[in-house]
Amino acid sequence: MLYTPQDLNYVRRVQDSFARQAFMQLIQAELRGIEPGYCEIHLPYQVQLTQQHQFFHAGIVATLADNAAGYAAFTLMAAQSSILSVEFKLNLVSPADGELLIARAEVLKHGKTLSVCRSDIFIVKNGTEKLCAAAQCTLIELPNTNDSAG
Amino acid sequence: MLYTPQDLNYVRRVQDSFARQAFMQLIQAELRGIEPGYCEIHLPYQVQLTQQHQFFHAGIVATLADNAAGYAAFTLMAAQSSILSVEFKLNLVSPADGELLIARAEVLKHGKTLSVCRSDIFIVKNGTEKLCAAAQCTLIELPNTNDSAG
Amino acid sequence: MLYTPQDLNYVRRVQDSFARQAFMQLIQAELRGIEPGYCEIHLPYQVQLTQQHQFFHAGIVATLADNAAGYAAFTLMAAQSSILSVEFKLNLVSPADGELLIARAEVLKHGKTLSVCRSDIFIVKNGTEKLCAAAQCTLIELPNTNDSAG
Amino acid sequence: MLYTPQDLNYVRRVQDSFARQAFMQLIQAELRGIEPGYCEIHLPYQVQLTQQHQFFHAGIVATLADNAAGYAAFTLMAAQSSILSVEFKLNLVSPADGELLIARAEVLKHGKTLSVCRSDIFIVKNGTEKLCAAAQCTLIELPNTNDSAG
Repeated sequence: MLYTPQDLNYVRRVQDSFARQAFMQLIQAELRGIEPGYCEIHLPYQVQLTQQHQFFHAGIVATLADNAAGYAAFTLMAAQSSILSVEFKLNLVSPADGELLIARAEVLKHGKTLSVCRSDIFIVKNGTEKLCAAAQCTLIELPNTNDSAG
Repeated sequence: MLYTPQDLNYVRRVQDSFARQAFMQLIQAELRGIEPGYCEIHLPYQVQLTQQHQFFHAGIVATLADNAAGYAAFTLMAAQSSILSVEFKLNLVSPADGELLIARAEVLKHGKTLSVCRSDIFIVKNGTEKLCAAAQCTLIELPNTNDSAG
Repeated sequence: MLYTPQDLNYVRRVQDSFARQAFMQLIQAELRGIEPGYCEIHLPYQVQLTQQHQFFHAGIVATLADNAAGYAAFTLMAAQSSILSVEFKLNLVSPADGELLIARAEVLKHGKTLSVCRSDIFIVKNGTEKLCAAAQCTLIELPNTNDSAG
Repeated sequence: MLYTPQDLNYVRRVQDSFARQAFMQLIQAELRGIEPGYCEIHLPYQVQLTQQHQFFHAGIVATLADNAAGYAAFTLMAAQSSILSVEFKLNLVSPADGELLIARAEVLKHGKTLSVCRSDIFIVKNGTEKLCAAAQCTLIELPNTNDSAG
């Protein structure tokens, strides 16, 4: 789906917000591919991000799914708005066993208050990409707030 | 609801699995209050776990919700089984703004293959506890596998 | 949880809205037990509401879960507001095999714009009640609209 | 995604199961477009299926979403298997205001035990189709059962 952003500065706005998320730095997540209504996040494998079988932890998969969805929706919001996750649902369909985790989210519906996004999360193992999780997420736009305010 | 565990060694089994999750060590999550069909996890505030407003990141809230649900269900499983998260849904109802995050999960239904749990996540600020998120989670029991195998 | 309704006429408001839902009449659903932040709906067994094994259809279970949640949230809204379902998630934990289906929903969080409810759906067979489904639902309040307007 | 069905008789198997669902007859739902891993269901507008604003009831939207997902997954299952809905999550993104409701579901992951599907639900008004809801659904295959057994 093709979207026209209200704020032409949406790439910078998403990058700034992402950079303020200390948790993204802790896990070394990388923001990629920001388009109107779309966001992609990459995360290289690190043992410290794993569960009991040394695969990426489901919480990490959820983190990427939710964050990619949030920033996909944020690209379409007004310059003076901030965003909050309302809820999301995540299906884990294959073990997150590989060297790189990729979340790709797109906006399904951009409403005046609420947006709905889908995130697909892929695991790359030996260079081959495979779907490992799928999410559906609801976000809310808070007008006249400031995403950078504490 | 009162449950009778099949494996009397369920506390140790949960503790061992939790200890093998490197991600729990990275974020310094603490396993608390393991009962049959119940699990509680605590997580003290750390700036590195935050989003752009310096509150706990939604991914961290999701991590705790999913993990508490998984271990609540794991208490009721057979000694030789391992567990996987099938899916979960999380509503974020208040900002996770406080000094301590607590996830409390209980089993709603323990089936032969699938279990369903609810997790409530509370934020403690200046000593006062408040609901900040609520999740509903589906887990699957994998018989004759070994949770400690890589 | 105890809630104080803003509109003391909440019982009548819920009854009127429910009565305007033609689908509730088609399936012969009965509104019961309206309290602030709470709603209960009963549905007697009818063959025409079943799936391929002659149990209540999952769509019927979902209908009751969503509707009970919506009216639980509606009890706490302003007199001039209408309500819409934003989303819901339903786990089907046991076959809906019995003579009566009961949905009981309560408000978990009543926010200024969004409310979150949980619905438990029970099946009564030979007089014994059993949990058959569990839902978590998000609702939105539309201020200064009119629930009775077409 | 292209799938190869295990049972070449999958169209007939889906049609037979659908025909045994009395609730589909009550609401006059029509099964369309069965392909491997895909199912489409149509439902013409009827006042008796509406909520308080005379739009299709959310429960009807959910019914179609869940049923299309179930039959999409069922196309890929073994001839001797039956299917149950484990859970689903539905976002209602626009009012279901129109003359025809269409659910289109496809399998995202067909696993040995569990399948995950996405359903998109469209409302057609004056001949124009619009997304009105989106669902993500988990189904379970019950081997060596018989879908037609009571």
